[in-house]
Amino acid sequence: MTGLSRYAGVMENLMNSAEEQQPSSPQANSWSNQQDSVSSKNQNPKSVGGFVLVHAGAGYHSESKAKEYKHVCKRACQRAVDRLKAGAFAVEAVAAALVELEDSPFTNAGMGSNLNLSGEIECDASIMDGKSLHYGAVGAISGIKNPVLVANRLLNEAQKGKLSAGRIPPCFLVGQGAHDWAVTHGIPPCPSEKMATKFSLSAYKRNKRKMELAEKMDTGHNQTKKRRQSSENENGSGCLDTVGAIVVDQEGNVAAAVSSGGLAMKHPGRVGQAAHYGCGCWAENACNMNPYSTAVSTSGCGEHLIRTMLARECSAAMQSEDAHQALLEAMQHKFISSPFLASEDRVLGGVIVLRCCRCVEAQPSQDIQGALVEFLWSHTTESMCVGYMSAQDSKAKTHISRLPPGAVPGQSLAIEGGVCRLMSIVE
Amino acid sequence: MTGLSRYAGVMENLMNSAEEQQPSSPQANSWSNQQDSVSSKNQNPKSVGGFVLVHAGAGYHSESKAKEYKHVCKRACQRAVDRLKAGAFAVEAVAAALVELEDSPFTNAGMGSNLNLSGEIECDASIMDGKSLHYGAVGAISGIKNPVLVANRLLNEAQKGKLSAGRIPPCFLVGQGAHDWAVTHGIPPCPSEKMATKFSLSAYKRNKRKMELAEKMDTGHNQTKKRRQSSENENGSGCLDTVGAIVVDQEGNVAAAVSSGGLAMKHPGRVGQAAHYGCGCWAENACNMNPYSTAVSTSGCGEHLIRTMLARECSAAMQSEDAHQALLEAMQHKFISSPFLASEDRVLGGVIVLRCCRCVEAQPSQDIQGALVEFLWSHTTESMCVGYMSAQDSKAKTHISRLPPGAVPGQSLAIEGGVCRLMSIVE
Repeated sequence: MTGLSRYAGVMENLMNSAEEQQPSSPQANSWSNQQDSVSSKNQNPKSVGGFVLVHAGAGYHSESKAKEYKHVCKRACQRAVDRLKAGAFAVEAVAAALVELEDSPFTNAGMGSNLNLSGEIECDASIMDGKSLHYGAVGAISGIKNPVLVANRLLNEAQKGKLSAGRIPPCFLVGQGAHDWAVTHGIPPCPSEKMATKFSLSAYKRNKRKMELAEKMDTGHNQTKKRRQSSENENGSGCLDTVGAIVVDQEGNVAAAVSSGGLAMKHPGRVGQAAHYGCGCWAENACNMNPYSTAVSTSGCGEHLIRTMLARECSAAMQSEDAHQALLEAMQHKFISSPFLASEDRVLGGVIVLRCCRCVEAQPSQDIQGALVEFLWSHTTESMCVGYMSAQDSKAKTHISRLPPGAVPGQSLAIEGGVCRLMSIVE
Repeated sequence: MTGLSRYAGVMENLMNSAEEQQPSSPQANSWSNQQDSVSSKNQNPKSVGGFVLVHAGAGYHSESKAKEYKHVCKRACQRAVDRLKAGAFAVEAVAAALVELEDSPFTNAGMGSNLNLSGEIECDASIMDGKSLHYGAVGAISGIKNPVLVANRLLNEAQKGKLSAGRIPPCFLVGQGAHDWAVTHGIPPCPSEKMATKFSLSAYKRNKRKMELAEKMDTGHNQTKKRRQSSENENGSGCLDTVGAIVVDQEGNVAAAVSSGGLAMKHPGRVGQAAHYGCGCWAENACNMNPYSTAVSTSGCGEHLIRTMLARECSAAMQSEDAHQALLEAMQHKFISSPFLASEDRVLGGVIVLRCCRCVEAQPSQDIQGALVEFLWSHTTESMCVGYMSAQDSKAKTHISRLPPGAVPGQSLAIEGGVCRLMSIVE
């Protein structure tokens, strides 16, 4: 109950304050006392509402590149808010944020993605619309600059109903078939060599040398055994910077999306959590059974996020009374200590979540609709870069959340968040 | 409570009877009174225990081919039981059953799979081990006779731990990358033309003509609208005969697998539920939180099974007291009336499920271990072909379950099942 009262206190603070504070330094396993009032009663919004939270990956973000990561998060938030202000639904706004994140050469998604074992880029992406509960995904797709746009187009096409001769439209396409479908549907191809960057190419060369060295050390009759022991830590907490975003629009609809170039040196054809239903993203509007609309996007080690179905688990947890406590427990019991990952020594991942409910009682007048958005991020990786913005804000806030000194990545977690009150005039 | 007492009655009957009866005719929405005593107290087992339930798809099984479908189910059960008798774990036995089902030219898996829009075969398959909770899957894989063996090999490799240079082994591979990985790991390629059958090729030609005709009718400015309305029923309840199996071994470990050639005339690269984690199959041994070990395999319209995550939902439901009632409710509320499929007029699919718990109190002596296996199948398609066998049986039983006359596929369901008591001597 400590968590609950503390959290309720934060909410109350926020609802009566227009102050903007920087997030306090994160505490492992404890709710940080940051107070982010993205919008408040003191403001008198004349335009439409909405809120976006993005991540540029859970992994390791060096201080030297921190500025770049924050900058791309800021731009992604702005893109989503621009769409929201133009009256777009959550799903369109979340796709717009993802395009910006994919286009950055610093993130492991779209342009500048990790190269696979064959030196090629193969991307995963998915998107979910909390209103229609439709979902679109692509896996191991090459030669497309913005994989999220293909996933979004699959979602849109599926919403139109059956194809000719009663065929059911696909929700998940992979490989060459996904590429060809995208081009047929007007999404331009992009030469693979244009998607690789100086940084991704040099990382590939470095990783290849590392692998060759590791395998040379493994020769002889103990090969298999040694192979399994070697270099456990080398890739473990490396940069796993999948990107994602979650959005709530003025009508209270939620949407979520995720995009990734996958693990560096992955086997060609490997599909990670970003294309897995329930694992990479989740969005579900409030309904009879669920009082809250929820949206989640994940990042980290794909296989860990797949086997724990982390996006859907976190979404389900968000229906509990205390959002912070629920996410903390989900990350501890359904991820770090999950029976599905019992054999893993370090469980690496991160999530961004939001939940939203109408708050009728606190309205200054009947013409103004209010919604309370609670948003959180949590990660077991060394760091996670996030950005967030409401449609009433002039610019996005960004933050690189880090495990406290001494915390072991994969065994400890950091959790932070805030509350935002949205208002829009009823016309 | 009616369901519960009726079900308990059936169990008691079975535990005191060695009679073998054919299943009675199925009743939509009602527990059929079949009494399948796969093993009984009167028998005195000297060998190892275990039980397998297989399906050759939920879809439409014509009377003319009923014999063939039953025959392949029988052979698949025998294969699994042979492995169980040789001391194999559930996961090995379930893979053996799947190989037999894939090798049949009559099923839509492996040999004789549906052809896609380009006239090619692309298969999906996955397997899950309830003991380790590991999972392996392949999607849109071509030129491999037994996709389930690739999925199984991925599962086995992942259990060995990390690859060189700390890389995490994949659990899901697709397309050409999956094919190449399989060949590298000693699984022989199979020329695609050998995997097509006279039947699958003629079905392709027929479907192609049908599509061309439907698209010709759609020309003009109303193309999109008409396209969406045309031939709603043509493919709806056609043969969707994905195959699958679920097994419990003598130690009470469970495993599940599924394999599919996918929808006829699907877009190249489309991946269906058979390769989707939580959608095609699920297996989870009993643990602190769950009193029952559960295993599930699904069949039907892939997109419906994906969006409802039906395998995992049914597995979770099986932890309720009354298995029959729980499955009935899961099929009604989490599938037919699922908010995820609100826009679908007909929701097509089927499941086989089993749950198993140790029954200590009813043992004739301390040297004999007993386990109670409750098994069920349920479908909203016109028919579903199943087979089942315990390690103590001399041969498998098979059955084609059909919706009762007048029931509407996609809106009604049939549900049947039985109980089996396994005993094995403790050495």
